[in-house]
Amino acid sequence: MKTPVQVAVVGASGYSGEELVGRLLNHPGVELTAVTSRQNAGQTVAQIFPRFASHPRARLLRFTEPNPELLAKQAHIIFLALPHGVAAEFAVPLLKLGCVVIDLSADFRLRSAAVYKEFYGHEHPAPDLLAQAVYGLPEFYRERIRGANLVASPGCYPTSILLPVIPLLRAGLVQPRGIIADSLSGVSGAGRKADVDYLFAECNESVRPYGVPKHRHLSEIEQELSVAAGSPVIIQFTPHLIPVNRGILTTLYLAPVAGCSSAAEVAALGERVAACYQQAYADEPFVRVLEGKALPDTKNVVGTNVLELAWRLDARTGRLIVMSAEDNLVKGASGQAVQSMNILGGFPETLGL
Amino acid sequence: MKTPVQVAVVGASGYSGEELVGRLLNHPGVELTAVTSRQNAGQTVAQIFPRFASHPRARLLRFTEPNPELLAKQAHIIFLALPHGVAAEFAVPLLKLGCVVIDLSADFRLRSAAVYKEFYGHEHPAPDLLAQAVYGLPEFYRERIRGANLVASPGCYPTSILLPVIPLLRAGLVQPRGIIADSLSGVSGAGRKADVDYLFAECNESVRPYGVPKHRHLSEIEQELSVAAGSPVIIQFTPHLIPVNRGILTTLYLAPVAGCSSAAEVAALGERVAACYQQAYADEPFVRVLEGKALPDTKNVVGTNVLELAWRLDARTGRLIVMSAEDNLVKGASGQAVQSMNILGGFPETLGL
Amino acid sequence: MKTPVQVAVVGASGYSGEELVGRLLNHPGVELTAVTSRQNAGQTVAQIFPRFASHPRARLLRFTEPNPELLAKQAHIIFLALPHGVAAEFAVPLLKLGCVVIDLSADFRLRSAAVYKEFYGHEHPAPDLLAQAVYGLPEFYRERIRGANLVASPGCYPTSILLPVIPLLRAGLVQPRGIIADSLSGVSGAGRKADVDYLFAECNESVRPYGVPKHRHLSEIEQELSVAAGSPVIIQFTPHLIPVNRGILTTLYLAPVAGCSSAAEVAALGERVAACYQQAYADEPFVRVLEGKALPDTKNVVGTNVLELAWRLDARTGRLIVMSAEDNLVKGASGQAVQSMNILGGFPETLGL
Amino acid sequence: MKTPVQVAVVGASGYSGEELVGRLLNHPGVELTAVTSRQNAGQTVAQIFPRFASHPRARLLRFTEPNPELLAKQAHIIFLALPHGVAAEFAVPLLKLGCVVIDLSADFRLRSAAVYKEFYGHEHPAPDLLAQAVYGLPEFYRERIRGANLVASPGCYPTSILLPVIPLLRAGLVQPRGIIADSLSGVSGAGRKADVDYLFAECNESVRPYGVPKHRHLSEIEQELSVAAGSPVIIQFTPHLIPVNRGILTTLYLAPVAGCSSAAEVAALGERVAACYQQAYADEPFVRVLEGKALPDTKNVVGTNVLELAWRLDARTGRLIVMSAEDNLVKGASGQAVQSMNILGGFPETLGL
Repeated sequence: MKTPVQVAVVGASGYSGEELVGRLLNHPGVELTAVTSRQNAGQTVAQIFPRFASHPRARLLRFTEPNPELLAKQAHIIFLALPHGVAAEFAVPLLKLGCVVIDLSADFRLRSAAVYKEFYGHEHPAPDLLAQAVYGLPEFYRERIRGANLVASPGCYPTSILLPVIPLLRAGLVQPRGIIADSLSGVSGAGRKADVDYLFAECNESVRPYGVPKHRHLSEIEQELSVAAGSPVIIQFTPHLIPVNRGILTTLYLAPVAGCSSAAEVAALGERVAACYQQAYADEPFVRVLEGKALPDTKNVVGTNVLELAWRLDARTGRLIVMSAEDNLVKGASGQAVQSMNILGGFPETLGL
Repeated sequence: MKTPVQVAVVGASGYSGEELVGRLLNHPGVELTAVTSRQNAGQTVAQIFPRFASHPRARLLRFTEPNPELLAKQAHIIFLALPHGVAAEFAVPLLKLGCVVIDLSADFRLRSAAVYKEFYGHEHPAPDLLAQAVYGLPEFYRERIRGANLVASPGCYPTSILLPVIPLLRAGLVQPRGIIADSLSGVSGAGRKADVDYLFAECNESVRPYGVPKHRHLSEIEQELSVAAGSPVIIQFTPHLIPVNRGILTTLYLAPVAGCSSAAEVAALGERVAACYQQAYADEPFVRVLEGKALPDTKNVVGTNVLELAWRLDARTGRLIVMSAEDNLVKGASGQAVQSMNILGGFPETLGL
Repeated sequence: MKTPVQVAVVGASGYSGEELVGRLLNHPGVELTAVTSRQNAGQTVAQIFPRFASHPRARLLRFTEPNPELLAKQAHIIFLALPHGVAAEFAVPLLKLGCVVIDLSADFRLRSAAVYKEFYGHEHPAPDLLAQAVYGLPEFYRERIRGANLVASPGCYPTSILLPVIPLLRAGLVQPRGIIADSLSGVSGAGRKADVDYLFAECNESVRPYGVPKHRHLSEIEQELSVAAGSPVIIQFTPHLIPVNRGILTTLYLAPVAGCSSAAEVAALGERVAACYQQAYADEPFVRVLEGKALPDTKNVVGTNVLELAWRLDARTGRLIVMSAEDNLVKGASGQAVQSMNILGGFPETLGL
Repeated sequence: MKTPVQVAVVGASGYSGEELVGRLLNHPGVELTAVTSRQNAGQTVAQIFPRFASHPRARLLRFTEPNPELLAKQAHIIFLALPHGVAAEFAVPLLKLGCVVIDLSADFRLRSAAVYKEFYGHEHPAPDLLAQAVYGLPEFYRERIRGANLVASPGCYPTSILLPVIPLLRAGLVQPRGIIADSLSGVSGAGRKADVDYLFAECNESVRPYGVPKHRHLSEIEQELSVAAGSPVIIQFTPHLIPVNRGILTTLYLAPVAGCSSAAEVAALGERVAACYQQAYADEPFVRVLEGKALPDTKNVVGTNVLELAWRLDARTGRLIVMSAEDNLVKGASGQAVQSMNILGGFPETLGL
């Protein structure tokens, strides 16, 4: 593509949209030519997102009503930061008009329209596109992203689970059965919507599980883990809401295939786990495997596109515990979408991240 | 009144309402016979306020649609925890039906319907009642509260300003001109309403002024300070929103009438200020004048009906600085309303507080 | 015992000590006659804990250096809020002097001095006392507490795990193998000690696991679960630090003994789980089993002695998920200790709680 | 200077030091060649500051014991992030060795050693250097910074007060007498030191004033305001601690020289204030004067080197209210120091910021 690549964001008024707009404004290889939002139409990016107000383009660029034909003239790569269901309605015309679409919603993450209906409660709006969509997890789909015209950027919880677990399943180190993922998410994950449940005074000094036992993100998590395992995987997943703005901390409970009771078994298995992660992530710029006594802490990754992880073998229980931390709005959403854009746009993968 | 006194809360779904319901459920002298809320009608108190779910009455008592005639049969003292404008609409029939009304809204705090219109933007709904309403600040209107049938419980910011300043003005220690009140409030002060501005991710890691320079609470603050000074008082008041659930911290800048520049002047004036507060509050159960190096901290008063204050004379600037801390939902709202109820119900003033 | 019972708190300067002092100051059946703290000796309770400054006794009672002989003259029931190891050093002479001791440390929670050494890293200071100590979990040891002279009040994490799991193990509803407890704790759990790790700016906007995989509390958890199961139980336990002052939220993953895959199996098992909890807790004042769609939230229990729990069966994974919430300083520490005191002092169990 | 310029940070273990290290690691014009910290000597930057662990240099660069002679060989520009008193001890030899020193402490901010002693409680360690030090507020000392070899980077509170007030005093729009600055600071301002007062559970759900009425920062604030006014200025300054990690919000109360009571006066004065700020800051990249109804909010500037401000005239009181927000660790400390470095290093002033 010729540089700067012209890009647009549809549905830019939420937290992911804001993060995306900020990353694109400062990205040296692209020009943000359009941002849309029905509620903010007519106002500048600087007015809606004051933190970008010192950026000259933010003071000039105005939100518009979303219009696919116009967008297709303004930009080559279009990011959709819309609710599921709505995203597909925009993706269809934009793809026909020759745009490359990077969708941050769940609409194109699943390969099966039936599973989509089971988890999202309505018919898939564009099932014909599912086959061509690429799951935008660069660490595992980099080559397919490079040639894609429709990237389905992963969900925040799925990213925090898939990056730690896929290498272990691929290497056959853990059993595909009985996996448990216990996740803690900051409140920005609930979106910028007026809802009493997410008021400050309801979330501060509060911790609570929700969506137990069947959260929607299970569908894409299990799809991708099944691909990695080569057999159907069903997992237990419990999300919790905690009083931070940003960050997801996931603790995973896994059953090693090899023994993990004696000191010798633990040592042998530990070497294999270390080697597995080393092979998977030593060259990945956005996955950090912690060493020594360090454990993940969301404050070390917030604001970055990095997921960090650590693991421990427990000889008492025979389990492998893996813990990961990420920024739900960056590696869990907008940063990862920019990472995909960098790949398909021919930029260095870390540019602007 | 015969014990237990039957009481009701109209509009009990907000934060002040919740605090009030909790205090009344546990008050040994009253029986909470009715709680109303249009949105919660039919549900039990335990369902809407899970923190009270272990209280037997909370599991039985159901929210109802508000109906003055029915309420007058169910209770003798009725608390109104409604928006301004709406509160007056309930007060009128309830008073006619013989109830005692304790109103937590702003509707009956002002003596002048014209000032009400200036600050609240609409005609006063029941101006005839203004003369009979008693401003429910027990430390200064205790005797009038005792015989009242309509108590206008003060606002949260006003309480944090009036208790520190009234004794000084009454004693002629500070000039009525040029008073500045800089206040910091927790987010519960904004109420339990679905509004993007008060989402966790908008308030956490954020501090911001608002309502500058003419906040509605100025009207009652200036009314009461004028009474204390015996002449019209106009003050500067700047509220800020800070990321705590509860608590107001107010810092007041005052100009002493006497000199305050030399060490001798400071010492002499200090004795007079100390004596003034001693006289005003030594016997008050809910005002705590700090001693030594202690400064107010909201965490020391949250959950209690206490306002604590400290003061300093600054020889460099010649000013008196007074700082106060209170729980905006207790001494700043529901606790103070119960304090008034205790007075007019003939209970010990600290009962249930 | 004659009323009021004289009580004392040794080591009252931490968060549990402060909570305990507050509860005892306001308890109608006891008189707090002594509080000790080396660092605060000579100062009043009001000076060290300003939030109690309106209580007359708090302004009079001064911290003293701890002295067993003097304490035994001042009080009949002595609470120890000391670090493990130190607590036993005080328990020994106090018991000899005829006092009843309620210890909030870990020193007398384990029946085996060997397990104590394994988990706490030093020889038990008074192994002879282990046999006579009663584990102060009133819901299961009420009768033994009634006649005890040494109560070992449970840890905060253990309480949040034992109350949900013991009834299920006793009823044989879940397998004793493979239990996972994933816990989230507020920062007060780390104590009031000067440590960079617990500074505001290190904990706020941060979530992190710690003590993985072998936290000290495992020892008492596994001891009590083994008693309930009638066979040795080893569990997986992962604590996390989250940015709230108070509160523990624990999510438990359990394997039902009966099938839990078909709708019929889930329905049948659900009835048994409900009945099990109904039988265990319907008459317990401090355990609340949630109904309907409600899930635990720490904000509903903070400041109370209540543990609330909810459970879900997952037909997809065949697991039982139980979630609990408590205030780590109340039901997880000082409230539970007062509950034990109420039992052995002959008070109503809920008095002052 | 030749590029990349070699730079070092002495005393890099605190919050300002960490922020500075992060900015310098990512600055395209400099090479960070040394970081010192007695407590962290031997460890890598990545080990101490995990958030930088993905930066290759952070994994290689190790903290060393501070040694001026060695530092002078390793770097040309040396940042001192040390406590006051200690900073001067390093500045003296480093300057002799030909280094350029940018000091983040208070040691060289005051022109008078006597004032230093009055506010800091000890003799100035190097009074001879005061004359050559340049106060590193680029908006007002840009030209002097360009040629400086010793820059005294301003304090966090002073920056939040000086940028709003200096233009008004210079233009003669406000009276130099009676200025009040009420400031709210995040807890990182207290530094990364083990102190019970700054524990999470002491600061969360708490707001409190401190240092009333004579905070150390008054000395440099009054010095610089006096320069701007051309006559001695004494101000009232009240800092408060609020539960955010980063950010300072300052509310200033000023008395206009011209009348500000009638609508016409307010309109006329408003134009002059607007023009004054327009002239001062229209071309400044790091000062943002808000327009319309917008008021400052720390969340819009945290993580950036921008100070934003808004102002209101109050016809009721005749006052001018100015409110500012900044990140105490960036524009209030390390970002501003890098801004000075950019100026004296010949870089674009916004590089790396």
